[in-house]
Amino acid sequence: MQQDRQKILTVSIKRLLRRGASSRLRKIVNKTHGADLSILFRDLPLKDRRLLFDMIDDVEQKGILFSELDEDLFIEFIDGMDPDEVVAILDDMPNDDVADLLNQLPDETASSLLKRMKKEGSDEVEDLMRFEDDTAGGIMNPDFIALNQEITAKAAIEQIQKEFADVEMPFYLYAVDEYGNLVGVCSLRQLVVVKPQTPLKAFMTTDVLSVQTHMDQEEVAKLVARYDILAVPVVDDSNRLVGIVTVDDVIDIFREEATEDILKMAGVGEEFVETKSIFKSTRIRLPWLFASCLGGIFAFYVIGTFEDSLSRITYLAAFIPVIMGMGGNIGTQSSTIVVRGLATGRLNIHDIWTVVGKELTVGFILGLVYGLLIGSVAQMQYSTFMLALAVCLAVVCSMSVAALVGSCVPMIFARLNIDPAVATGPFVTTAIDIISVYFYFTIATRFLGV
Amino acid sequence: MQQDRQKILTVSIKRLLRRGASSRLRKIVNKTHGADLSILFRDLPLKDRRLLFDMIDDVEQKGILFSELDEDLFIEFIDGMDPDEVVAILDDMPNDDVADLLNQLPDETASSLLKRMKKEGSDEVEDLMRFEDDTAGGIMNPDFIALNQEITAKAAIEQIQKEFADVEMPFYLYAVDEYGNLVGVCSLRQLVVVKPQTPLKAFMTTDVLSVQTHMDQEEVAKLVARYDILAVPVVDDSNRLVGIVTVDDVIDIFREEATEDILKMAGVGEEFVETKSIFKSTRIRLPWLFASCLGGIFAFYVIGTFEDSLSRITYLAAFIPVIMGMGGNIGTQSSTIVVRGLATGRLNIHDIWTVVGKELTVGFILGLVYGLLIGSVAQMQYSTFMLALAVCLAVVCSMSVAALVGSCVPMIFARLNIDPAVATGPFVTTAIDIISVYFYFTIATRFLGV
Repeated sequence: MQQDRQKILTVSIKRLLRRGASSRLRKIVNKTHGADLSILFRDLPLKDRRLLFDMIDDVEQKGILFSELDEDLFIEFIDGMDPDEVVAILDDMPNDDVADLLNQLPDETASSLLKRMKKEGSDEVEDLMRFEDDTAGGIMNPDFIALNQEITAKAAIEQIQKEFADVEMPFYLYAVDEYGNLVGVCSLRQLVVVKPQTPLKAFMTTDVLSVQTHMDQEEVAKLVARYDILAVPVVDDSNRLVGIVTVDDVIDIFREEATEDILKMAGVGEEFVETKSIFKSTRIRLPWLFASCLGGIFAFYVIGTFEDSLSRITYLAAFIPVIMGMGGNIGTQSSTIVVRGLATGRLNIHDIWTVVGKELTVGFILGLVYGLLIGSVAQMQYSTFMLALAVCLAVVCSMSVAALVGSCVPMIFARLNIDPAVATGPFVTTAIDIISVYFYFTIATRFLGV
Repeated sequence: MQQDRQKILTVSIKRLLRRGASSRLRKIVNKTHGADLSILFRDLPLKDRRLLFDMIDDVEQKGILFSELDEDLFIEFIDGMDPDEVVAILDDMPNDDVADLLNQLPDETASSLLKRMKKEGSDEVEDLMRFEDDTAGGIMNPDFIALNQEITAKAAIEQIQKEFADVEMPFYLYAVDEYGNLVGVCSLRQLVVVKPQTPLKAFMTTDVLSVQTHMDQEEVAKLVARYDILAVPVVDDSNRLVGIVTVDDVIDIFREEATEDILKMAGVGEEFVETKSIFKSTRIRLPWLFASCLGGIFAFYVIGTFEDSLSRITYLAAFIPVIMGMGGNIGTQSSTIVVRGLATGRLNIHDIWTVVGKELTVGFILGLVYGLLIGSVAQMQYSTFMLALAVCLAVVCSMSVAALVGSCVPMIFARLNIDPAVATGPFVTTAIDIISVYFYFTIATRFLGV
C-alpha cells in the first residue's frame, strides 16, 4: 500500500519533470512529507533533485528532507549548494539532527559550516558531535524539560508554557536539583491533577531509570523497549541531565540493527548495498566471498588426498552435495537462532553450555533422521550396505558437528565482545563445509576399505 | 549490561528459593519490573513461579507480568490458577492486553473467563478479539482521548482532567464530529497555549493520517516509523475513530517481524524456538531440512549421470565443494538484500528488472574474479588448461545464475503476495546447489571430452 503510494508519487513527479510543469511540481513537493521525498530522490538525477529542492518554500521542510536523505545522496547534494543556504537550513533544524548530518561530512566542510552557524546552536552541536555515533550521547536529543524539584506544580506549568514551548515532544518532565543532577520524573498529566501549590518533589517519582552518555545505543534501545517507556534520560559521569533518547529514535535503532545483523550474517557488509552503485556493491561483497572461496579450495585439497579412493569408487563423489548441504543448512539454523537470540535477549551469553548442548542434541536427532533417509537412498542405488552405513554415519556426524559449530562460534564471539553476526555467516559455513567433506571421506574410505 | 543485571537477579532469586528466604524474596519480587520477572520465569520450575507470583502484592503488577510472559509459560501458568483470581487480574488490565491474552487461550477457557469479567470491560475485550491478531484492529489500544470539535480549549482541558485521567499515554487529542468520525488532531501543548475560549476546530490540524482496522500491522508500523509520529488513529469502515496504535507497540512489531524474517530465511519456523523443548525445536526444523535433503538427493542423481566421466577424471569431484559454496554464498547475499530491502522499503516490488539486472551484473563480475582465481588453482594443481577453463567458466555461470535466482525468487514471491522470507531460505539454496552442480559437470565434460 505504502509502496503503491510511493510508486504513484514517483511516476507522476517524473512525468511532470519531463513536461516541465513547474507550478504543479511546486504544489506537490510542498505537500509531500520529507520522508517520501527522500525516497523519491533515490530515483532522480541530481539536476532534478536540485530543481525540486529549490521549490520547497518552508526552510523547516528542507531540514526534514536533509535528515531523511541517504548519506550518499546528502553528501553529493550538499556539495554544490550555496553554504549560506545550507547554514540557514541547519540553523533551523534540531541540534541533534544537525550533529548527525555534520558527522557524515568531511571534517573541513563540517567545521566551516559550524563556524557560519549561529553561536548558540553551533556550541550545542559541537558538544553533541563529541559523542560516538552509536552511543546514548550520540543519539540523544538535547531538548527536554528539566524543572527544579523545589518549584510548585503551578509554577512548573507556567515555566513550561513560557520556556519550553518549542520542546518537540514533552513526554516526561524531569526534576533536577540545584546542580542539574537528575533526581526525579513526573508526567504532564500529574501536573494538572495535583493541587497547584504542591512542590514537584512531593509527587515526583524518585526511582528514575537513566543511562549514561557512553552506553551503547542497542542497550539503550533494549531498555526503552523492555520497560515500555517513551523516553529515557541521559546523564553524564556526574549524573547531570544532558539529554533524552526518545522512542522514535529507538525504532530507528532496532530497524537499523536488525538489518545490520541480517546483512552481516549473509556477508554483505553492514549497510544496505542495493541502493549503492554496482561497483560499490561488488567491492563490499567481494571479501566475504573470499572466505568461502578459501574454504572451498581447502576442501578441494582435502578431497585431493582421497583421490586414490575416489578413482576406485567414483560414486563416492555423488554424495558430496547432500552431505555438505545438510551440514550447511543445520549450521545456518543453529547460528541464526543463537545470533538472533542474543540480539533480542532471549538467550544469555552466560548460558553457553545449555544452549550448545541443546543444539548438539537437536543436530544429532535430525542427523539420525536424515542419515537414515539418505543412507536408504544410497542402499537402493548401489546395494552396498557398507556404503549406505558410511553415508548415514557421515550425515549424522556432519549435522551434529554443524549444530555444535553453528551454536558455539557465535556464543564464543559474543563472550569475546566480537559481534556474533559478523563472525557467523561466512566463517561458520566455510568451516562446516570443510569438516563435512573430511568426515565423509574418512568414514567412507575406512568402511569400504579403499 | 542488561544481561548481567538479569543474570544477577536470576542467580540471587534461585539462591533465596533454595534457602526458602520468603521475606527477602517478597521484597525483591515486588521491586522488580514485570518484564524482568517474565525472563526470570523462563528459568524456574512451575512450582517456584507460582510461589513468586503469589508474593506479588499489586494486582496491576500481576497484570503486567501476565502480558510479558511467553505464550507457553502463560498457558501453563494459568492452567492451575483459581479463575476468580485470574478474572480479578484481567479486570484491572488494559482491555487490549486482555484481548491479546485471551486470544492465546483455548476458546472455552477464554469465553468462560470473559463471562466472569465485569460487563463493561468484557464487552470491549470481545469487540477487540474480533480483529485479526496482526492487523491495526488487533493491536490497537481502545483508550484514547476523543473530544468534540465544537468545544473550547478550556472545556477540553476540564474534560481531560475529569474523564480521561486514566488514559495511559495522552500523545494526541483527537477531534471528532457528532457521529464520532475523526476530523482532526491537536496536542496537549496546543490546548494550554491557545486562548481558553478558542474552539478545537479553529486550531486543530485537519490533515490527519489514519489507518483502517484491517490494515496489516507491518504497514501500520512502517507508517508510524516513516513519519516519526507517536500514535496513529484507527478508524472503522465508516471513518469512526475506534482506537490508536502507539509507538511502543510499533517497536514490538518491528522486533517481531525482523526476528521472524531472519528465522524464516534460515528455515527455523517463525517463532523463536530456542526457549522451546528439544522435541518441539526438532519438529519445527525438520521440514525445512527436508527441502535441502531432497535437493541434495537430486544433485546426487545429477552427478550419477556423469559417473562415466568421473571414473575417467576423478579429480573433477574435488571442485564440487568450491563451486557449490561460491554459488550458495552469493545466492544468499542476493536473496538477503532483496528480502531485507523489501521489508524495510528500500526496494520496491515494482522495480524487479532494475534489481535483478543489478544483481546479475554483480554476480557476473564477482564470478569472473573468483572464476579466474579458482581456475588458476586448478591450473597449478593439474596443469590442464581445458580443466582450468572449465572450472573458471563453471564458477562464472554458477555465481551469475545464483545471483539471478537469489534476487528473482523473493521478488516474484513478493509480487504473488507470498512472504519472500519464507520462500527464500531453503528453496533458493537448494535450487542453486542443483544448478551449480549441473552446470559444472556439463561444462567440464564438454571441455575435457569425457
